[in-house]
Amino acid sequence: MALIVQKFGGTSVGDPEKIKNVAKRVLKNKKEGNQVVVILSAMSGETNRLTDFAMAMQDIPDSREMDVLLSSGEQVTISLFAMAMKALGDDCVSFLGDQVKILTDSSHTKARIESIDTESIMEVLNDDKVVVVAGFQGVDSDGNITTLGRGGSDTTAVALAAVLNADVCEIFTDVEGIYTADPNICNKARKIDRISYDEMLELASLGAKVLDIRSVTFAKQYHVPIHVRSTFTDTEGTWVVEEEKAMEGRIVSGVTYNKSEARITISGVPDQPGIATKIFTPISNANIIVDMIIQNQDTGNGMTDMTFTVLRSDYERTLKILGSVVESTEATGGIHSSDAITKISIVGVGMRNHSGIASTMFSVLANEGINISMISTSEIKVSCIINEKYTELAVRALHDAFELDKDNMAEEETLV
Amino acid sequence: MALIVQKFGGTSVGDPEKIKNVAKRVLKNKKEGNQVVVILSAMSGETNRLTDFAMAMQDIPDSREMDVLLSSGEQVTISLFAMAMKALGDDCVSFLGDQVKILTDSSHTKARIESIDTESIMEVLNDDKVVVVAGFQGVDSDGNITTLGRGGSDTTAVALAAVLNADVCEIFTDVEGIYTADPNICNKARKIDRISYDEMLELASLGAKVLDIRSVTFAKQYHVPIHVRSTFTDTEGTWVVEEEKAMEGRIVSGVTYNKSEARITISGVPDQPGIATKIFTPISNANIIVDMIIQNQDTGNGMTDMTFTVLRSDYERTLKILGSVVESTEATGGIHSSDAITKISIVGVGMRNHSGIASTMFSVLANEGINISMISTSEIKVSCIINEKYTELAVRALHDAFELDKDNMAEEETLV
Repeated sequence: MALIVQKFGGTSVGDPEKIKNVAKRVLKNKKEGNQVVVILSAMSGETNRLTDFAMAMQDIPDSREMDVLLSSGEQVTISLFAMAMKALGDDCVSFLGDQVKILTDSSHTKARIESIDTESIMEVLNDDKVVVVAGFQGVDSDGNITTLGRGGSDTTAVALAAVLNADVCEIFTDVEGIYTADPNICNKARKIDRISYDEMLELASLGAKVLDIRSVTFAKQYHVPIHVRSTFTDTEGTWVVEEEKAMEGRIVSGVTYNKSEARITISGVPDQPGIATKIFTPISNANIIVDMIIQNQDTGNGMTDMTFTVLRSDYERTLKILGSVVESTEATGGIHSSDAITKISIVGVGMRNHSGIASTMFSVLANEGINISMISTSEIKVSCIINEKYTELAVRALHDAFELDKDNMAEEETLV
Repeated sequence: MALIVQKFGGTSVGDPEKIKNVAKRVLKNKKEGNQVVVILSAMSGETNRLTDFAMAMQDIPDSREMDVLLSSGEQVTISLFAMAMKALGDDCVSFLGDQVKILTDSSHTKARIESIDTESIMEVLNDDKVVVVAGFQGVDSDGNITTLGRGGSDTTAVALAAVLNADVCEIFTDVEGIYTADPNICNKARKIDRISYDEMLELASLGAKVLDIRSVTFAKQYHVPIHVRSTFTDTEGTWVVEEEKAMEGRIVSGVTYNKSEARITISGVPDQPGIATKIFTPISNANIIVDMIIQNQDTGNGMTDMTFTVLRSDYERTLKILGSVVESTEATGGIHSSDAITKISIVGVGMRNHSGIASTMFSVLANEGINISMISTSEIKVSCIINEKYTELAVRALHDAFELDKDNMAEEETLV
């Protein structure tokens, strides 16, 4: 008998019929002899409906009350799901975040889980019933409702799998797993069978939308195997697991892109100590997160260029702030910027043992006539900022160049 | 400084604009120097939306999960209201039933309040903030969400007013108060200024829909003055209070009707001990509530007729159950029944000191050619079952006959 945590997202529980289908699926897993804990998101569309209400009330809705509001969404789906299980002749008990209880800090709309009581869940499981828990929500030590932020239901699922010592945390979604590239723009994209936590973390932070980055961090920390798979089929999806020897045979695991950033360059700033502080302190004070930062080497005239990226949603605000900053830094070259950029990245643990990956990437892009305006690397990824209009072309060219359509993970075995 | 509890129903908070208007009204009361505790229902239509979901899941939705589902409705309105108060520059904290906490028994969908903690509410009030509490919901001693049933938000409001020792419990609604008759069918209907708890209890149980009967019972028990008034105007509504001397000058306070019942007669049943048990035990076992019961005197042949009323929604089910019952009682006259009936009632504390009120009622109906099929009386009311089609005619005739368009409560003073 295994203990399985299964998380279903908003599209999987988007209407009563879909909730019934999820119940059937869960019952099948239970009848196979497993204990099942189900985590549900709000129905797709519900969070938007509620957010629209909130925006009609207050320009910047109060975060404590926003959590009270949004947490009602999962409350609806878990109760309906429990009814659906009972209608199938099984038994099921629903738990809200504060009933479990999922204790978090008090950072409303982006709370962090501090602890989870497992007693009531285990009691219900040992009664041979299914447990359904509201994703995304918790409670702080004062009894206030909190929410975990975007992708919070994934975090709830992985955290519960960790404390329950579950055999697997299954994340059900509307795609079949993690792909080597976005299948919508690259028809050679291949579903990845197994991927390491570190690779998944890079992919998630670089734009892959299937798994939330915090849930992967949690899974890595607590050694929770995640199985990302489709709600609508029975086929195996992608396992996100500890790094395995065979994974190293694969130099690049995936190509991903992110269109949510904008690039800003301040030219001709004096190359002297403290210049970065002068530029970035006012930006950070405005709660704007800066992603990539590149400062060019002073080429002899005592001047340098500072280039960085911010979220597109912060683009206009950042430019406004920089207006006064540029004056105080006595920058001579003015500001050059664009919000029509893409960050395109290749990720793979195999990079650690292989050289020349970055230069291959650069030459592939050059061969397609694509100019690179910024570069950033880590141990297992290379990212380039390019003009947004080349996104699809770049993804396909890199996918071809690194032969991602072939499952080269097992090459060590097959080459013996 | 007064402490005011204000309850707004679903139509008063039916959309974001209406919620903002309620917030403005509350702020005005606060600025006049009062402490204000607001109780809200779910947006009108929301309970139906959620109930439809539930019915799509399970033929008879599980009552524990139904409470989890329905309680999400008030969660939405209280958080939006708190945001609206903050947008007006004031401060406000929302509380769910389990946060207050409103402790109930475990009778899901019809729980009874056992106790309410006032500490957290008083803390917020003394911080000069408005408190908004979700109506209709509570929590049992095991932490399960419960709901109080139909009209539960009124009960929440009165119960909170009682434990907080509030100066008044204002129930805001879409009408201007309690009327001497339904203004939709009687254009001479007059708003009642003051009415006693007992009269209000009779009116509520006999079909007046403005106040829930349990909330009035609670108010009577804890001496909470209720002020029923319109959300949309500033005019005084109806005060529901302890019985006052002046009220006795008014023989009849109001005429009301109830179309939700059906009448069933079993003719020719043997007039012997135990016959009522034989008939009503199987009905009660099916959870069908019987309202009026009349057994005619045996007129000499050892047979009697048994007539009673049930809710129309239980009518078909009751007839089915009676099929076999009639056989076992050896009733010879068969079953005669109708679901096209109305219970029409007159209510007034002045009846205690006046005779002939019932006979006046009977003659008024007779004069209009309306046949009476059942009669039931209490100390302060007389009810008659008549053919449904005469409802409006009967209400207007009784309203005229007892001169309810005139405010005769103060007659003792004016006659001096």
